Amino acid sequence: MKIAIAQINTTVGDLVGNTNKVVDCIKKAKKKKVDLVVFPELTITGYPPKDLLLKAKFINDNKKKLAKIIEETKNIAVVVGFVDKEKNKLYNAATFIKNKKLVGIQHKTHLPNYDVFDERRYFTSAKECKIFELGGHKIGISICEDIWVDNGPVDSQAADGANIIINVSASPFYINKTRIRRELISRRAKSNKVTIIYNNLVGGQDDLVFDGRSYVFNNKGKLIIEGKHFEEDFLIFDSERRYDRVKVNDDCLKEIFLALVLGIKDYVKKNKFKQVVVGLSGGIDSALVTVLAVHALGKDNVFGVSMPSIISSKGSLDDSKRLAQNLGINYKVIPIIGIINSYSETLLDEFKNTQPNIAEENIQARVRGNILMALSNKFNYLVLTTGNKSEFAVGYCTLYGDMVGGFAPISDVLKTLIYKLADYINNNYPNTIIPKSIILKEPSAELRVGQKDSDSLPRYEILDQVLKKYIEEGKNKKEIAHLGIDGSIIEEIVYKVDHNEFKRQQAALGIKITQKAFGSGRRMPITNLYRD
Amino acid sequence: MKIAIAQINTTVGDLVGNTNKVVDCIKKAKKKKVDLVVFPELTITGYPPKDLLLKAKFINDNKKKLAKIIEETKNIAVVVGFVDKEKNKLYNAATFIKNKKLVGIQHKTHLPNYDVFDERRYFTSAKECKIFELGGHKIGISICEDIWVDNGPVDSQAADGANIIINVSASPFYINKTRIRRELISRRAKSNKVTIIYNNLVGGQDDLVFDGRSYVFNNKGKLIIEGKHFEEDFLIFDSERRYDRVKVNDDCLKEIFLALVLGIKDYVKKNKFKQVVVGLSGGIDSALVTVLAVHALGKDNVFGVSMPSIISSKGSLDDSKRLAQNLGINYKVIPIIGIINSYSETLLDEFKNTQPNIAEENIQARVRGNILMALSNKFNYLVLTTGNKSEFAVGYCTLYGDMVGGFAPISDVLKTLIYKLADYINNNYPNTIIPKSIILKEPSAELRVGQKDSDSLPRYEILDQVLKKYIEEGKNKKEIAHLGIDGSIIEEIVYKVDHNEFKRQQAALGIKITQKAFGSGRRMPITNLYRD
Repeated sequence: MKIAIAQINTTVGDLVGNTNKVVDCIKKAKKKKVDLVVFPELTITGYPPKDLLLKAKFINDNKKKLAKIIEETKNIAVVVGFVDKEKNKLYNAATFIKNKKLVGIQHKTHLPNYDVFDERRYFTSAKECKIFELGGHKIGISICEDIWVDNGPVDSQAADGANIIINVSASPFYINKTRIRRELISRRAKSNKVTIIYNNLVGGQDDLVFDGRSYVFNNKGKLIIEGKHFEEDFLIFDSERRYDRVKVNDDCLKEIFLALVLGIKDYVKKNKFKQVVVGLSGGIDSALVTVLAVHALGKDNVFGVSMPSIISSKGSLDDSKRLAQNLGINYKVIPIIGIINSYSETLLDEFKNTQPNIAEENIQARVRGNILMALSNKFNYLVLTTGNKSEFAVGYCTLYGDMVGGFAPISDVLKTLIYKLADYINNNYPNTIIPKSIILKEPSAELRVGQKDSDSLPRYEILDQVLKKYIEEGKNKKEIAHLGIDGSIIEEIVYKVDHNEFKRQQAALGIKITQKAFGSGRRMPITNLYRD
Repeated sequence: MKIAIAQINTTVGDLVGNTNKVVDCIKKAKKKKVDLVVFPELTITGYPPKDLLLKAKFINDNKKKLAKIIEETKNIAVVVGFVDKEKNKLYNAATFIKNKKLVGIQHKTHLPNYDVFDERRYFTSAKECKIFELGGHKIGISICEDIWVDNGPVDSQAADGANIIINVSASPFYINKTRIRRELISRRAKSNKVTIIYNNLVGGQDDLVFDGRSYVFNNKGKLIIEGKHFEEDFLIFDSERRYDRVKVNDDCLKEIFLALVLGIKDYVKKNKFKQVVVGLSGGIDSALVTVLAVHALGKDNVFGVSMPSIISSKGSLDDSKRLAQNLGINYKVIPIIGIINSYSETLLDEFKNTQPNIAEENIQARVRGNILMALSNKFNYLVLTTGNKSEFAVGYCTLYGDMVGGFAPISDVLKTLIYKLADYINNNYPNTIIPKSIILKEPSAELRVGQKDSDSLPRYEILDQVLKKYIEEGKNKKEIAHLGIDGSIIEEIVYKVDHNEFKRQQAALGIKITQKAFGSGRRMPITNLYRD
């Protein structure tokens, strides 16, 4: 028996487009004499459809598309994900269709309701785990989370005689997830002595990147087929063939790089933009975002703008220019000195007898934000926000200033990781070199003369260690102190994180690459007097 | 037996402050010879604590506060809400404490996981519904949602012999909720022949306003005690006394007004601000927000700023000035003509050979936003955003422009309701009169010469009808067409709503007053190709 894994890139809400992709894959599968073709979780609606699921018409429309797909299954079997509705309850479901007949439907049993997942907001759990038969094989269908649970549906289906387990997934990327997923599925295949056909969605959807990398494990837990990472793929498993073990090759930085590139590409394209604009400060964050954008969209679709004030150093301007030249992107310099002066004059009366403070600094950041938005409004560029996770964590960023933009590609990337990514890019992509001077210079917001990030923040090596423990691992201050970092520094960082929820609540969407990103997976109250 | 309802205003995360309030109320109850005092849902942590619940130390700290409260219960019984943890599972719980002894704990059975609620993200459901005894009475404790469910815990406790049901709630306000809640509890009391002691939280917490208005219903379903609306209260029910039926007096506009005032007051105070600034455009939205702020914070804590450009009409400026005079607030005029001109000069080269469009219009809105934020950064004012629900719905607002601010008090108020609220205020509060010219003028963003809202939008009477159906009632286009509104108008409105998710995702928190507000209760994907 030949089973195809159609690792496709669906789009949330694009019932027509997603269905067309399914139909195309079925045709391809037929050509390749495949017996069964499998699609990722919630194929028809895209994942996660969120509150679209509360629209009755959306559910009906998705069912109509399923009917259309069934029509296309002459002489082939298909497992496709859709939203089922029975007695007014919704189910995250996958079909088993054979030769234009809907043989059965498997509902999802384990509904994730943590981090970015809200499935219990919408769905009801499966009441039973079924077995389907095809070509002498007994097949159990499971949906994403179902395979993550010990003594769960996969084990019960195996106990009921299944020799093949299909898992249709939409498992978002984070660092190291590939390894975790691979080990889990291998263990599940081995312990149950079943072949596992694992189809994972690929593509960017708002803050999530689904990384694909579908798998086939044999019934000894050996990886025998591996799909592409961060790209669509079409894999065929032949149950009559012998396979060697696939040699795995994890490259953490490469994965992060590809995740960020795909996240940008899909956000821009699926939202019908073509071009992006980035404010180039001369620092490493904007440099990295620009390089990622070039890899995602091509150099002709990326516009860099430097907006020097009297505080900006000549070095910063030169570096930005050199970066733009290295990348071959469109580049403009728009000095903001005149505008800043006009703000000073306008506010002269209001601000007399006050000391210069963050108000004056933020005006500069906000003027730059305004210019980027003016270019966006005039030329339909999407503004990419350049802030990193370390900054967002401690609020070292200006609301409506450097925080403006439709998408914040590196908002889940800690500063220390940004340097590693810059090195990775310079070592692997000679056409998009980030100038060394950008990498080597001391980080500065350049909002007042001589300002350095280190005036306001601990060294990034320290800051990032604490942030990782506090945000990603959920440790408290006492537990973090085990790192050997000065207690007052930990105190200050934790205070700043807790105190800047209001900024992050208004931040642009970013790409989740860690187990705990800011955004929909971290729901802290703004009004909150708890201090650990 | 005497039972007190301590209708208190807790703050999320303020374990110390909330516990102190509990202890004070216990002392007061003792003085009044009360046998049992009851507090609202999750008293110790405040509601909703959201992802604070994922911090193990937060849970431990909340348990320590419970121990402290138990110490204070000599010769009295107390029902207080807290987060229980058993075998690594969390429960939304209420205690039954008697004379310094924790007699028992009731967990919540029905965990709301819809709209703004995420309780299944954190909590496990109760396994049993208990009965406690006091002074010859049999008492069942239920928690919020538990009383909303037919054939739920209340019915089973009554069947098990309870003659008194206590419900500890954190039930947020929306229009008409008071009536719905009252009818529900009355029905529940009558059908089970039980006295119901209903304690509802009061206070603003981010986007939610809990309206208090606790109740006692007798076992015939008659309302016999009613707590204050939108204020703390301390009610005593004496089971030996006879009560007359309370005459209810619902006033929809008054309730909305009080909800908005309390929402502003608590957001500002709980976040440790004292003063707010509002940009006064001369229109009704900013006028209403300013009036609400005066009622919430006092006129000395409200700053109004007019920022005229060359497009602003003299009428607008005069109206703003008159409003400020009527209210007695601090008022400044900061003209932005110079700044706008400097933007034009700076962008001259970029914008040559282009037609003036939304880019130029938005620059004005964003300059105003910058000035408000500069005042905020300099003087520590919280900026109140003045946008209404109709605007946010169709994206008739400028990101980083009129959308700037820490809190958006009227972002769930449709434009047509804003006019009604203005009339309500003018009829009831002679000290905060909104000038008639503001109410009568045709709505305009004044971002280009002669601009009117009606150039871009259908009449608000039409727009709001469609928005109500589409957003609040979840109807589709076909269903909305039954209103008799032109299909192309409905089409346009629905398109705009769907298309502006990206703006709302970066909007300031607002106060929920309808069954479906934008914000945490409405989770739409931004990348979404579904068009109804």
